[in-house]
Amino acid sequence: MKRISILGSTGSIGKNALRVIAANPNRFSVEYLTAGHNADLLIEQALNFQPKTIAIADKKQVAAVQQSLKPYHIEVLDGKQGINEIAAKQDVDLVLNAIVGSAGLEPSYHALQAGNDIALSNKESLVMAGELINRLLKEKNLKLYPVDSEHSAVWQCIAGEKPENIRRIILTGSGGPFRSYPVEQFDQITPAQALKHPTWSMGRKITIDSATLMNKGLEIIEAYWLFHLPPEQMDILIHPQSIIHSMVEFIDGSIKAQLGLPDMKLPIQYALSYPDRLPVSWENTDFASIGTLTFEAPDFAKFPSIQLAYDALKRGGTAPAILNVVNEWAVYAFLEHKIKFTDIPRFVEEALSTLPIKDIPKLADILKAEQAGREFVENKLLK
Amino acid sequence: MKRISILGSTGSIGKNALRVIAANPNRFSVEYLTAGHNADLLIEQALNFQPKTIAIADKKQVAAVQQSLKPYHIEVLDGKQGINEIAAKQDVDLVLNAIVGSAGLEPSYHALQAGNDIALSNKESLVMAGELINRLLKEKNLKLYPVDSEHSAVWQCIAGEKPENIRRIILTGSGGPFRSYPVEQFDQITPAQALKHPTWSMGRKITIDSATLMNKGLEIIEAYWLFHLPPEQMDILIHPQSIIHSMVEFIDGSIKAQLGLPDMKLPIQYALSYPDRLPVSWENTDFASIGTLTFEAPDFAKFPSIQLAYDALKRGGTAPAILNVVNEWAVYAFLEHKIKFTDIPRFVEEALSTLPIKDIPKLADILKAEQAGREFVENKLLK
Repeated sequence: MKRISILGSTGSIGKNALRVIAANPNRFSVEYLTAGHNADLLIEQALNFQPKTIAIADKKQVAAVQQSLKPYHIEVLDGKQGINEIAAKQDVDLVLNAIVGSAGLEPSYHALQAGNDIALSNKESLVMAGELINRLLKEKNLKLYPVDSEHSAVWQCIAGEKPENIRRIILTGSGGPFRSYPVEQFDQITPAQALKHPTWSMGRKITIDSATLMNKGLEIIEAYWLFHLPPEQMDILIHPQSIIHSMVEFIDGSIKAQLGLPDMKLPIQYALSYPDRLPVSWENTDFASIGTLTFEAPDFAKFPSIQLAYDALKRGGTAPAILNVVNEWAVYAFLEHKIKFTDIPRFVEEALSTLPIKDIPKLADILKAEQAGREFVENKLLK
Repeated sequence: MKRISILGSTGSIGKNALRVIAANPNRFSVEYLTAGHNADLLIEQALNFQPKTIAIADKKQVAAVQQSLKPYHIEVLDGKQGINEIAAKQDVDLVLNAIVGSAGLEPSYHALQAGNDIALSNKESLVMAGELINRLLKEKNLKLYPVDSEHSAVWQCIAGEKPENIRRIILTGSGGPFRSYPVEQFDQITPAQALKHPTWSMGRKITIDSATLMNKGLEIIEAYWLFHLPPEQMDILIHPQSIIHSMVEFIDGSIKAQLGLPDMKLPIQYALSYPDRLPVSWENTDFASIGTLTFEAPDFAKFPSIQLAYDALKRGGTAPAILNVVNEWAVYAFLEHKIKFTDIPRFVEEALSTLPIKDIPKLADILKAEQAGREFVENKLLK
């Protein structure tokens, strides 16, 4: 029985993780759950999975959650502190961090500090603090398993292979809803248009990142901290059908790919069940019916976020953290109709060229950069 | 330094193997070479690679070869016996069996009996005597590495995976030159047409097998003896671009594929260098220029050889040996314009329903079945 805690259980990844766990009741137990604001769903999940303790970030809803769960002896914590406390609980085998955005960084840090292995869906943890997290993993001899479909694909492709034989990682991406959309009309793109992802069903933040292709950029930075290849050995390939989830090229020219239908349950389950694979009843991949897979090079001019991410990775220090947080708050501003679609990368570029960048950052430095990035976006919105 | 002997060095695989070895002179040494009839090329190879001993099957050419190599102290053996003797030489690390057709079986047997690991391009060894060869591998604790691009792909995809987690093997095939050709005109297909393979450059025998799709059938039988999955867990998928070399599906629905340009040097090198991979300078796979990969189900009605192979595998005993040898001699008869393209599977079907099949065959039984199959084709040609 693997004891799991899920941080961010009411989001898209969290819900799918609970589906995977519900399908394998003899394999996994849910020890802890945390959520941001969705009190109703958190209560329902707590009743279904009977965790020891849960936490909700939104302090205004704590009383109501406590009231509902009182008869069931489920403890309820609150706020960022409550979530960090749950991340650090040591009576678990694996912490799934499925929190959305930069809010996921501190819980990752606390989970590792407490000696917990992590299944990481919160890519921001690695994007913002990859060096710090890698240091902790090494010091404490811990494991960090990727949950992103692309990184799960790479992880599966390098199984049984020597790291020194890897020549190149090829991260595939659908290209998002605006792959063939005229660039002249990019500044009129609405949130409703950008939220229509062609292949993957995901949360709102990541769906917008997939439309700007910043998501691929963040994934390149994440891949750097997971697989330790220099930026020039990591490529992006547009593959609209989202069947090949990513590829790895070896020094002899052989390429391995991991494929499957676009369903996040697979990489989530793999991260939870590793080193085992568990049989599933979900739909099989039928290549004859799929018929055609296509590929094209990414358009760096149309989607400037990609280059911004490569540049931030090469710059290092707090640059990726600034990229990440400015992008994140710009995305929320776009979703609230406060800025244009094209303002998102514009804000990021401006922030990277004006905000101070600190090398070899500690957690405090990263949190300071996060604060600075957030204020940068707020100030832009006031103007 | 890995000491290699190459059986069948003047064929397509043998020549490519020597290219791989020539590119890695500090890794491999050529200890022995054997050929069928091509004395001129064998002499040239012997002068280039300086093996200790060589053999040529064609006894009429022995004297000339001996004459040419006398000044260089290279011993020359002859006939089937000479080739078997070289297969059994024990001062090598790996025997590459690249002999074409059923003539490759006995050398495989002698190599294993002598305690040699094998890199197997001669799929007929496993098709005809899979059970026997597996018994020898187990008894003597030897390794057999596949050289066929499809089986090399499967082998690479299962690296680091547990055998019990494999759900299905998907062998891909280009579909050959007649994939879209009207079935009504199949009996007018000429050898010249059938020898034009759309993607792979290979020997004549295997190119015709790729046109009838018997090659995929033989590969299913070969895969059975390499990977030990029941026939219903091995599928064929038509993939005209020959970029995906085969795939493996796992119990959780995850699929891994091995990809690359269609160049036999890659799987040959992998079998020679395993467990290492060696850097190469050959052309990279550029997916954006490739653009499109397509898939379709194989047409069992148009290409009856596939079903014949599945049936022979399920029947077991000497049935696959009969399938293989009757197909082989029918292919040669077709290449000599003696029979029609559609006669090839017709001969095989008739032989399988008339010739006696022996269960749990010894080598002598398989060689008897081979003889019977050959005589079956000869008798058909006399009529």
